[in-house]
Amino acid sequence: MRHLIDITDLSVEEIEGLMDTAADIVAHPENYRDRCRYKKLATLFFEPSTRTRLSFEAAMMELGGQVLGIPEASSSSAAKGESMADTAKIVSGYADIIAMRHPLEGAALAAAGKADVPVINAGDGGHCHPTQTLTDLFAIRRELGRLTHLTVGLCGDLKYGRTVHSLIAAMSRYPGVTFVSVSPEELRLPDYVTAAMEKAGIPHRETADLEGALPELDVLYMTRIQRERFADPAVYERLKDSYVLDTDKMKKAKETMCVLHPLPRVNEIHPAVDADPRAAYFRQAVGGKYMRMALILKLLAEREAPASLPQGEPAPHRCRNPRCITRVEQALPLLQKDGRCIYCETII
Amino acid sequence: MRHLIDITDLSVEEIEGLMDTAADIVAHPENYRDRCRYKKLATLFFEPSTRTRLSFEAAMMELGGQVLGIPEASSSSAAKGESMADTAKIVSGYADIIAMRHPLEGAALAAAGKADVPVINAGDGGHCHPTQTLTDLFAIRRELGRLTHLTVGLCGDLKYGRTVHSLIAAMSRYPGVTFVSVSPEELRLPDYVTAAMEKAGIPHRETADLEGALPELDVLYMTRIQRERFADPAVYERLKDSYVLDTDKMKKAKETMCVLHPLPRVNEIHPAVDADPRAAYFRQAVGGKYMRMALILKLLAEREAPASLPQGEPAPHRCRNPRCITRVEQALPLLQKDGRCIYCETII
Amino acid sequence: MRHLIDITDLSVEEIEGLMDTAADIVAHPENYRDRCRYKKLATLFFEPSTRTRLSFEAAMMELGGQVLGIPEASSSSAAKGESMADTAKIVSGYADIIAMRHPLEGAALAAAGKADVPVINAGDGGHCHPTQTLTDLFAIRRELGRLTHLTVGLCGDLKYGRTVHSLIAAMSRYPGVTFVSVSPEELRLPDYVTAAMEKAGIPHRETADLEGALPELDVLYMTRIQRERFADPAVYERLKDSYVLDTDKMKKAKETMCVLHPLPRVNEIHPAVDADPRAAYFRQAVGGKYMRMALILKLLAEREAPASLPQGEPAPHRCRNPRCITRVEQALPLLQKDGRCIYCETII
Repeated sequence: MRHLIDITDLSVEEIEGLMDTAADIVAHPENYRDRCRYKKLATLFFEPSTRTRLSFEAAMMELGGQVLGIPEASSSSAAKGESMADTAKIVSGYADIIAMRHPLEGAALAAAGKADVPVINAGDGGHCHPTQTLTDLFAIRRELGRLTHLTVGLCGDLKYGRTVHSLIAAMSRYPGVTFVSVSPEELRLPDYVTAAMEKAGIPHRETADLEGALPELDVLYMTRIQRERFADPAVYERLKDSYVLDTDKMKKAKETMCVLHPLPRVNEIHPAVDADPRAAYFRQAVGGKYMRMALILKLLAEREAPASLPQGEPAPHRCRNPRCITRVEQALPLLQKDGRCIYCETII
Repeated sequence: MRHLIDITDLSVEEIEGLMDTAADIVAHPENYRDRCRYKKLATLFFEPSTRTRLSFEAAMMELGGQVLGIPEASSSSAAKGESMADTAKIVSGYADIIAMRHPLEGAALAAAGKADVPVINAGDGGHCHPTQTLTDLFAIRRELGRLTHLTVGLCGDLKYGRTVHSLIAAMSRYPGVTFVSVSPEELRLPDYVTAAMEKAGIPHRETADLEGALPELDVLYMTRIQRERFADPAVYERLKDSYVLDTDKMKKAKETMCVLHPLPRVNEIHPAVDADPRAAYFRQAVGGKYMRMALILKLLAEREAPASLPQGEPAPHRCRNPRCITRVEQALPLLQKDGRCIYCETII
Repeated sequence: MRHLIDITDLSVEEIEGLMDTAADIVAHPENYRDRCRYKKLATLFFEPSTRTRLSFEAAMMELGGQVLGIPEASSSSAAKGESMADTAKIVSGYADIIAMRHPLEGAALAAAGKADVPVINAGDGGHCHPTQTLTDLFAIRRELGRLTHLTVGLCGDLKYGRTVHSLIAAMSRYPGVTFVSVSPEELRLPDYVTAAMEKAGIPHRETADLEGALPELDVLYMTRIQRERFADPAVYERLKDSYVLDTDKMKKAKETMCVLHPLPRVNEIHPAVDADPRAAYFRQAVGGKYMRMALILKLLAEREAPASLPQGEPAPHRCRNPRCITRVEQALPLLQKDGRCIYCETII
């Protein structure tokens, strides 16, 4: 049985296969609309995320399946002190596949270790959100026809933005990709991300100037800058407008550039940009539904495949990351791999 | 593509058509139970309303469709600051039709302006609730066989009760209807409503005496009187029992009168009245499900029709109604029509 | 029309029939997966209970039916002051069967009195939870092949644990059953329960020593001991580990013993026990789904049968149990039977 916890659980070939399936669903939805008849998806959302939850639910329904779940933690047994792993185990007796979101890092992996059905990580704290990355890749392929030989701009909060880190990791596996990261000094990409790019020989340039970077970009991936990330509010006030995409700035961009955003946006893309044909973020969101359909089909078809979970060795002590699932779920086996906690990947 | 934002978006002929369809569904449910197969309804309830939400969900299911949604705002991206219009846009990529409830006036119209699928207003603050009016009209037709030549009593809070205002507007389009409004002085119909009736030549009488009015009524439409509407609690205490319908008062009414209520009731109709065959409010609620089925079928069938949204001209300034959706959704175009905000109909 | 409010609403023969159906569903699920097509279950959960709610929802879906509902009270009209009985009445116009959970005792009976469709009690405060008992009985029959001639250990909080009281009542109807109750002094079975066993001639032994009792047990039914049940926290601290089942204690048990738990567990069964083949609590939870499927089929099939609700006579005054539904729902008829409130069974 396979799960999807981290985007690297899938090979490039598998991701291509998922995109091919998704494209075929777009072209021939009637061929897929009874494929999951008599199957059930459980959405276990221990923190709310409307867009992601509805995307999974719509995906399962468009495959002819049914959906049950916990729309948010307050309606769950968590209030009675039940462990999340027990909840996942029990729910796997009620559904054929689980999509799970949780505020703690490593939660989906912990659930997968206990569940009897495939678990899809729909976001575990600031750690992973692999179906967002699948959504992003499919959007680029649909908008531009390829994932190779592209200059990809990443704009906004690059320090804390997990979707950005995950997209870099995924696109680094394609030839000819150049990254341009655009952010204020305070929110630059973490050193370990830039070091990994350098080591892998991926061209990368950093700038604080969105307008200057725009003309060369094939893709502009926007993210939100949050006021609370800045120690000095005055710095935020001075900087914020530079990272707001508006119709003026769009005039600097190529005719073929596409603008992506993981959504929800707040004010980092002006609503007037929505009418620009290069604004692809709403199409991107719909595409995410098709990728989730492809993923559900794949995982249900591979129920008999060997488990895809990482194997670890006993860790010498409990992980010290305060947001690691092992801080709360006391019964989880404490495991490490390559010196890192297998749940949250923090150095032990 | 058509939406239903305000009851006046539908002509009298269209409402008659919806009632004919609803009656046919009641008679032959098996003809309809697969009509929306492979279709999805999204219920976006930014404030809770069990009865309305379940009525829509049951309606879609009895048409063979599926339902997804946001049962209440706390589980939505609203907590992350996403605009309601963006949510509606994204959800329209996941569903074929949207039923939306929101605490702010004009919210459904704003959503319809952005969505790619039909939007049904399931209540926008104190402004409109057109499917309630459809429910009320169908109830009267089912109970009494006609919508013409009726004396309609309206009792309770007629000042703030939007369902009452909307029912008056809808029934004023039928010949031979007389209204008797029954309320304490503090909660009389607003002047603009009585003025409109006078201008249209609709017979109308006001009284504070429910018992005195009862004998002449064909329909008694009850609504709740809330304590907090009264500046002086003593006045509320003195008045409240006069507007509670009980078995004693029912003895004064015609044998053929029907009692309606938009529900939920609190104590304005004594539970002992439920056993009276003239108590039609629970049948009314079930009828609402059939009207919603008819409406869903109509809007899905008219996906190709021209948009039914009001066209406005630029407004000179933001609407000053503090409950208008434009106060919160900063990006909405500010539009007026006939000197009123197109969203909440407040005079600009 | 029949309802299931209390486990004693079902005869031993009927329970056997339900277990036969459940076993047949396990063996031939494909024979059942369209049996409730075009039917709807409403889950009215006025307090959260993930496991129970999802079990009902999965049950209905595996019968081909659809589900709508109130996942928790905060999203209901209860906030507007609507009576629970009115909600049940209205919802019975939207669904074919209702599963209801409520924090007050007697709530399901009160709802059944008003609803037009069968009502299943999914837990009414500390009073009844009959589908849990059906789940427990089915688990024992599946694990051990019989419900007769068994020594059943009941461990933990036997004073407040309604599932335990209900299981005793249900198993007392089978021949050859011996009960061993294992609890601290503070949490012994209530006198009225032990008195009933003595009167019926059911062998029963009490002990505070779990390890000592284990070797003779065929079934060990574990429940949670809550710190707040103890007046003196020191007593709790001294006792708690004695009632935690771990792999060491399991060595004392028969090879054929099965461990049950109504779930959720907190720490009264160590997670290492999960790997023991005698740990049956997760299988028990899945079995509950099949029993609920059998129950839904039975109640829908018996829509024309006479009502199974208890008939009472007028009570001289309102029930004094502060957790009785009549304390909140003022309009309910006040009825007694054999000197007890028909809703909560407290002595009037």
